[in-house]
Amino acid sequence: MPTLQFTVTHHDAETKARTGVLQTAHGLIETPVFMPVGTQGTVKGLTQDILEQLGVRILLANTYHLYLRPGEAVIREVGGLHRLMSWKGAILTDSGGYQVFSLRDLRKVTDEGVEFRSHLDGSRHLLSPERAVEIQSALRPDIMMVLDECTEYPVSHAISQRAMERTLTWAVRSKEAWEQLCINDKDPATGSLFGIGQGGVSPELRRECAQRLTEIGFPGYALGGLSLGEPRTLTYELVGATTECLPKDQPRYVMGVGLPEELPHYVAQGIDMMDCVLPTRNGRNGMLFTSHGRLHIRQARFARDTRPPDESCGCPTCRRYTRAYLRHLFVSGEMLGAILNSCHNLFFYLDTMRNIRQTIAAGNFSCFLKGFSDRVQGEVS
Amino acid sequence: MPTLQFTVTHHDAETKARTGVLQTAHGLIETPVFMPVGTQGTVKGLTQDILEQLGVRILLANTYHLYLRPGEAVIREVGGLHRLMSWKGAILTDSGGYQVFSLRDLRKVTDEGVEFRSHLDGSRHLLSPERAVEIQSALRPDIMMVLDECTEYPVSHAISQRAMERTLTWAVRSKEAWEQLCINDKDPATGSLFGIGQGGVSPELRRECAQRLTEIGFPGYALGGLSLGEPRTLTYELVGATTECLPKDQPRYVMGVGLPEELPHYVAQGIDMMDCVLPTRNGRNGMLFTSHGRLHIRQARFARDTRPPDESCGCPTCRRYTRAYLRHLFVSGEMLGAILNSCHNLFFYLDTMRNIRQTIAAGNFSCFLKGFSDRVQGEVS
Repeated sequence: MPTLQFTVTHHDAETKARTGVLQTAHGLIETPVFMPVGTQGTVKGLTQDILEQLGVRILLANTYHLYLRPGEAVIREVGGLHRLMSWKGAILTDSGGYQVFSLRDLRKVTDEGVEFRSHLDGSRHLLSPERAVEIQSALRPDIMMVLDECTEYPVSHAISQRAMERTLTWAVRSKEAWEQLCINDKDPATGSLFGIGQGGVSPELRRECAQRLTEIGFPGYALGGLSLGEPRTLTYELVGATTECLPKDQPRYVMGVGLPEELPHYVAQGIDMMDCVLPTRNGRNGMLFTSHGRLHIRQARFARDTRPPDESCGCPTCRRYTRAYLRHLFVSGEMLGAILNSCHNLFFYLDTMRNIRQTIAAGNFSCFLKGFSDRVQGEVS
Repeated sequence: MPTLQFTVTHHDAETKARTGVLQTAHGLIETPVFMPVGTQGTVKGLTQDILEQLGVRILLANTYHLYLRPGEAVIREVGGLHRLMSWKGAILTDSGGYQVFSLRDLRKVTDEGVEFRSHLDGSRHLLSPERAVEIQSALRPDIMMVLDECTEYPVSHAISQRAMERTLTWAVRSKEAWEQLCINDKDPATGSLFGIGQGGVSPELRRECAQRLTEIGFPGYALGGLSLGEPRTLTYELVGATTECLPKDQPRYVMGVGLPEELPHYVAQGIDMMDCVLPTRNGRNGMLFTSHGRLHIRQARFARDTRPPDESCGCPTCRRYTRAYLRHLFVSGEMLGAILNSCHNLFFYLDTMRNIRQTIAAGNFSCFLKGFSDRVQGEVS
């Protein structure tokens, strides 16, 4: 059986923030950690060399996309996603559920699972809890996720409750499928399976779901269906309601968040892991996150600006290039603009996490939390 | 006055091939050299760090594109193209003439220069020999090029002759404009100005043009209007006819060539410098140049192929990634495919030039020339 070891190393005195170390078959990961998203087996625009240079120790890949292309058979045959990508660090795969639910008109949910049609060629597929585990096992990630039922925002209490019940039923089936897989698998490298809590925007449902998931028992717990449009203070409250019902000695992961100023708030609610496409997506769209606020590189005022994007940043982009150059690249539609912006943004996210870990360990996380959000969420003056 | 020093270091016994060292204000360049093309001030998909890592010492930038965007005023104000790009190596700029002539319906040639309309916004511009020098001076390259008149292929002798005469008149005007600029320029960094020979597909015109250009006198000489569709053996003949009429102690540059198997043939005709978009453009299109032939990465046979693109290649792509991964990236439309393919192809070009220089110095260039073309121009089996 694969083991994932998690050790909490420091607790913040004023919040639920904590630091820890997650031990995987592909290295140690200091938490809280931000995981960049490699949707199709690549963090868009960045080489694996650069990811290592930036300090990425774990990344997320999307099972839905990789299942459709290149397909589980190809990935299984080349020896898993680490081999396909030539990536030495850890990998977490999602179940594919979130993408499938996003297809809206192309999917139908039953107790059995989700029937969907590929966005690429319209072909029909069924994603069940068992299949989600099976497909992920072909990818050989360090951590895999159960299939859960995502709801939209806004959502009624009744629908949230029904989705939560189905999510819990699927969690049991997922765990059974995973245990069967471990028995059959000659290679003990099958990744650990994390549970996912749902419950819409109801703190009561979130708490109930967390308690019942804990009874089923997983080596780590994720929070799904958040950051879908609800007010951010409500998101933090829901996260807090959930984490207080989860085991203290296991990692907690909020899926698909968030903006830089949000990261320490999730951590303050006891979160250890996060992932988000924003650093790379916004980089491609010409938006840079800096320690002094957002910088929209397209603006004409940057045409002759020979300063780096962020003068206090030590990333490869800021160490070498100017705003004038990045603006020229963006306006000219050059790939290098997307590359350099993504590199900067990802560094900024990882650096924020380093600061979070350091301030928790040093006992001044609350100070960091207060000043950080105000500083980074405005526009660069 | 800027000085560009060129020293021939070895002569091949059997061909006109030679090695040399070109000394610029931005470093020494061993010749024969291949210059990657950074059309809009970036070699598409590659960071300046990677260019350095690959051993690029000089690159080409296109004046036409940079004149339109970000514009000569911006580049002048930030201190030139080296500053804009944060590039420490040497830069050669073309005159903009070739791109303007390629506009066909959007340009009109007179003795004064070329009137053209921007492909971006339709605005009207005049590119004269004097303006071409002036615009390039804003870019502050190490080497700039005179404006010449390019003809198409096929072309009549009469049209070739008329274009050659105009090219020679423009060469005189360009040199005068450049000399005036050097007198006015307080900063002695104005780049050296190279002449360009034309003459269509007539060896006689090519010879005559070379002789008359030499009489005008330039620190280096380029050959324009080649590789436009004429048979390759004719190209080599035209190059040979030209180089035998050029000074032996100055660098010679064939513009816009070529395929890997052609490179040593140009060198055998006495060429020291070449540039081409093929390594990056073909990289983006999924075609890899390897020591065993071309590899079209899209092909289904590579889906499960865990070998590197070229097993005997030491480039960052081949050292880490597999054909299966590159195929997946290409088929999925991922930027990383273009990045890794371009990186490999450029390394292959630069490595070919290293082999050419080494075999000339070691006295076995003819051997290299014979085996190389057959090996690299087929399909990878």
